[in-house]
Amino acid sequence: MDNNERIDIVPGTDYKIIQNKEKFSYGTDAIFLSDFGKPKGMVMDLGTGSGIIPLRIVGKKGIQMIYGIEIQEDVAQRAQRSIELNKLQDKIEIIHMNLKDLPNKFKKASFDTIISNPPYMKSECAIINKEQNFAISRHEIACTFEDIIMVSNYLLKPQGKVYIVHRPDRLTDILYTMRQYKIEPKYIRFVQPKIDKKPNLILIEGSKGGKPDLKFYNPLIVYNNDGTYTEEIYRIYGMDR
Amino acid sequence: MDNNERIDIVPGTDYKIIQNKEKFSYGTDAIFLSDFGKPKGMVMDLGTGSGIIPLRIVGKKGIQMIYGIEIQEDVAQRAQRSIELNKLQDKIEIIHMNLKDLPNKFKKASFDTIISNPPYMKSECAIINKEQNFAISRHEIACTFEDIIMVSNYLLKPQGKVYIVHRPDRLTDILYTMRQYKIEPKYIRFVQPKIDKKPNLILIEGSKGGKPDLKFYNPLIVYNNDGTYTEEIYRIYGMDR
Repeated sequence: MDNNERIDIVPGTDYKIIQNKEKFSYGTDAIFLSDFGKPKGMVMDLGTGSGIIPLRIVGKKGIQMIYGIEIQEDVAQRAQRSIELNKLQDKIEIIHMNLKDLPNKFKKASFDTIISNPPYMKSECAIINKEQNFAISRHEIACTFEDIIMVSNYLLKPQGKVYIVHRPDRLTDILYTMRQYKIEPKYIRFVQPKIDKKPNLILIEGSKGGKPDLKFYNPLIVYNNDGTYTEEIYRIYGMDR
Repeated sequence: MDNNERIDIVPGTDYKIIQNKEKFSYGTDAIFLSDFGKPKGMVMDLGTGSGIIPLRIVGKKGIQMIYGIEIQEDVAQRAQRSIELNKLQDKIEIIHMNLKDLPNKFKKASFDTIISNPPYMKSECAIINKEQNFAISRHEIACTFEDIIMVSNYLLKPQGKVYIVHRPDRLTDILYTMRQYKIEPKYIRFVQPKIDKKPNLILIEGSKGGKPDLKFYNPLIVYNNDGTYTEEIYRIYGMDR
């Protein structure tokens, strides 16, 4: 542990997670995604960051092994220390590599589930944060959405599932790219800050080789009109009221 | 007028519309779409049916001419009689033809606006209504969504706009096909029966040659929780409270 680090509890679990106070911390996005996803069997988290998603889902039934891929070496090392802190090395493996190289490491059609909280912003259309770590986590510098879906198509078994959280302004990119790579969007859930507000996040489930038919869930509402959290947020965070 | 016909008032206007009581009548979909769209210049309504959309929008500023295309001869003739009843022949022309043949009749890039309330259901995946008229209006028998977007791409000027109403389960088809034919989805509005329900209709604006960036409007809510119509529905229908 260095002085810039602190240990938090992973919401909804008893696990601990090491976070660097000056760098990119996990957000509500990863928490919502790990609630939305129904991972099973062999699971791959593309761009795992602090390892928050593997730690959130490792307690779910039917998971064989979770791999968390992270391109930033210091971030991957910190995630690895979090896994060791929880003695979860036999269930979660953090791999420091570029996800575009995954086809060199894993066989085609060897995974049941892909989960990813990818960078949201196109690298050409945003002011890139000076701090490189923030930039890689937020902008499509190291990989684009297409890279993620291309790799998912390679790794997934037929009918394997992809779970992704993204921004509403990228909806066309998301649905277009998924269909292009034969990962058909099957379920969508919008996250709205309040019941009468437009969505600020999208949760999507795709199925490799699935038939076209997109189903909507009722939206996930974060705040009640009085500014308190909704019941569902309490449930997702595993908080007592 | 034959015995199966009745004359209604076009919501929000003083115009009259002839409808056949035994055949497909316009729905709320067309009313919502004509509220959502911002037509201008040369306007094309693909699959005009009763002519409801031309009659709803003809009073808007900046419209030069509206063409309503309808493949069903009896339906097109009835729409034409509605136009004559309102003495709008110099602003609205109903054309009985297959929209796939439009490139033989109009020049490329000659329209500012396309508007369409197309059939929602894929013809192969639904029980087709025995009444052929209902079937053509509801199922993709005479034309598919791709035909509509292909023709729109041909007819539209650069930056020309497409306004479409469709079903949420076709969202991937819609966004994929629009991008494929260079009509970039720019605005989306969901229609929800109540504030806490998932959407049952989608309103979309696309721009020919537009840059990727999809913006969401706040949803259009039809009913209050007590079962009365919302203020916005009263506004759209031009009803006094």
